[in-house]
Amino acid sequence: MSALTKRIERDPYVSRVASVPEIVDRVDPVVYARPGTTGPLTPEQVAQYDRQGFLEIDGLFDAEELAAMLTELERLQRAQAELDPETLILEPQGQELRSIFAIHTQSRLFARLARDERLVGIARYLLGDDVYVHQSRLNYKPGFFGKEFYWHSDFETWHIEDGMPRMRALSCSLTLTRNTEYNGPLMLIPGSHRRYVRCVGETPDEHYKQSLRKQEYGVPDPDSLRALYEEGGIVAPTGEAGKLIIFDCNVMHGSNSNISPLPRSNVFLVYNSVSNRLVAPFGNKPPRPEFLATRRSYEVLEPVSGRLV
Amino acid sequence: MSALTKRIERDPYVSRVASVPEIVDRVDPVVYARPGTTGPLTPEQVAQYDRQGFLEIDGLFDAEELAAMLTELERLQRAQAELDPETLILEPQGQELRSIFAIHTQSRLFARLARDERLVGIARYLLGDDVYVHQSRLNYKPGFFGKEFYWHSDFETWHIEDGMPRMRALSCSLTLTRNTEYNGPLMLIPGSHRRYVRCVGETPDEHYKQSLRKQEYGVPDPDSLRALYEEGGIVAPTGEAGKLIIFDCNVMHGSNSNISPLPRSNVFLVYNSVSNRLVAPFGNKPPRPEFLATRRSYEVLEPVSGRLV
Repeated sequence: MSALTKRIERDPYVSRVASVPEIVDRVDPVVYARPGTTGPLTPEQVAQYDRQGFLEIDGLFDAEELAAMLTELERLQRAQAELDPETLILEPQGQELRSIFAIHTQSRLFARLARDERLVGIARYLLGDDVYVHQSRLNYKPGFFGKEFYWHSDFETWHIEDGMPRMRALSCSLTLTRNTEYNGPLMLIPGSHRRYVRCVGETPDEHYKQSLRKQEYGVPDPDSLRALYEEGGIVAPTGEAGKLIIFDCNVMHGSNSNISPLPRSNVFLVYNSVSNRLVAPFGNKPPRPEFLATRRSYEVLEPVSGRLV
Repeated sequence: MSALTKRIERDPYVSRVASVPEIVDRVDPVVYARPGTTGPLTPEQVAQYDRQGFLEIDGLFDAEELAAMLTELERLQRAQAELDPETLILEPQGQELRSIFAIHTQSRLFARLARDERLVGIARYLLGDDVYVHQSRLNYKPGFFGKEFYWHSDFETWHIEDGMPRMRALSCSLTLTRNTEYNGPLMLIPGSHRRYVRCVGETPDEHYKQSLRKQEYGVPDPDSLRALYEEGGIVAPTGEAGKLIIFDCNVMHGSNSNISPLPRSNVFLVYNSVSNRLVAPFGNKPPRPEFLATRRSYEVLEPVSGRLV
């Protein structure tokens, strides 16, 4: 038995170790709700989430709530000096704000949103457990100079770098501006959440011919991405502000750059099952800071009902 | 009268001189065909080109011709060693081929395409003159790592860097692969060809607050782009291989990056009126090389009828 096989016996989601990439099947459920139980989603919605790895829901928040969130987003942009500087991410080679992390700890409105029954209810139902916020952020993706996010599974990073044990987390992305085909919308590969791409962990040797391009550490390889694409295609939800996209922690996703004049802003909340709290990172490096991955300060969420404002 | 006003009297398309950008009206016609004359386009197509600055035409080339061009594109990719190395452009930070220039001088098939009556006939009609190839290239835009092209007017560059006197040229882009909303398709701003954005020529002074981002030399500024977008919106022609997009030399266009697995390849031919041949560059720098801008080796095109293969 090779050293790698032994490691995989202990951890089915080993990654960044071998010199060639590999696609394997997911070993965890996607939907943890007990069969027969009812929740905030229709059976069709649950089946779609299970099959695709994501779900779009329009109209959960009304115009006044969306306006309040957009106003808060703009206020936070101006109030950068009052925020934890570590949580502010600028566009590469620019001064424009790309993201603010840990917004559920830095904004009253977004703290309230994080507890909102409309989101927490869905997360608790699909994950079949109490939940807490693993990560939160505002993405500004400004017009003209918004950079691409290359394809990735969030779980691969959260497992290797943060120590999230299993696939029992989901993300809620609520759009605060219009998403069009021109402003670099979120693209997802339906069904990719049922597979797991082990990324390469070292520079491939000379005989590795799958790509002319040097493989990067922790990035899925083109052949695996092409295989996932051929099975599932690409979907890029577009539409007016206020669209909620709920997606599994392991669905492959990314976005192209945005040279259009339209910003593409959203609020992003990751819910993790309390049974799936972080342990030591599986990549054997020190864990990333708390603002990227809640480790010590987790709080089991009690859903709050009613409108945000 | 300021020095700039004097320069503008001599050259209405002065650019890269002032410290603030400016949008002005185009002073040249878009369609040079004499009224009442008929040509290869319908009156509706001519009116659309005049109004939008571009036109899409499907089905001009049949499946066998498209297959031959795709095969030739792939052959040239493998035959790089036989091509003029100056004409090969690689992706930034990669080894993948982005473009081959001067393909009408390096490939028998694309030399034939450049003379094809279906293209030359349209160019001669719209430009109201004999034409020659100002520039030609194959764009490979590979999947996964295709980089964006920021917004630009070709004419601004051709005028300032190559010495093209007036707006009396057009581009033909023939798609050789499928264009989708996911693989960084060409985006155009309808109507932008009727305006001209003078780019800034020096780093703006401290009081210039229109953008936080440092202006780059020869790049249109965000406020002008936003104004053009608000007038015209964005159109990104998508569809199967074989779509011809004819666009005016001054229409504002660009494309986002392409992280999708789908390459986006096309053949690109620029026709210029023989009455509009290059003079000394208006930017007062030495002209760019011949493979980017035909200066000495121009040849008035005699259209060739019949199928390509």
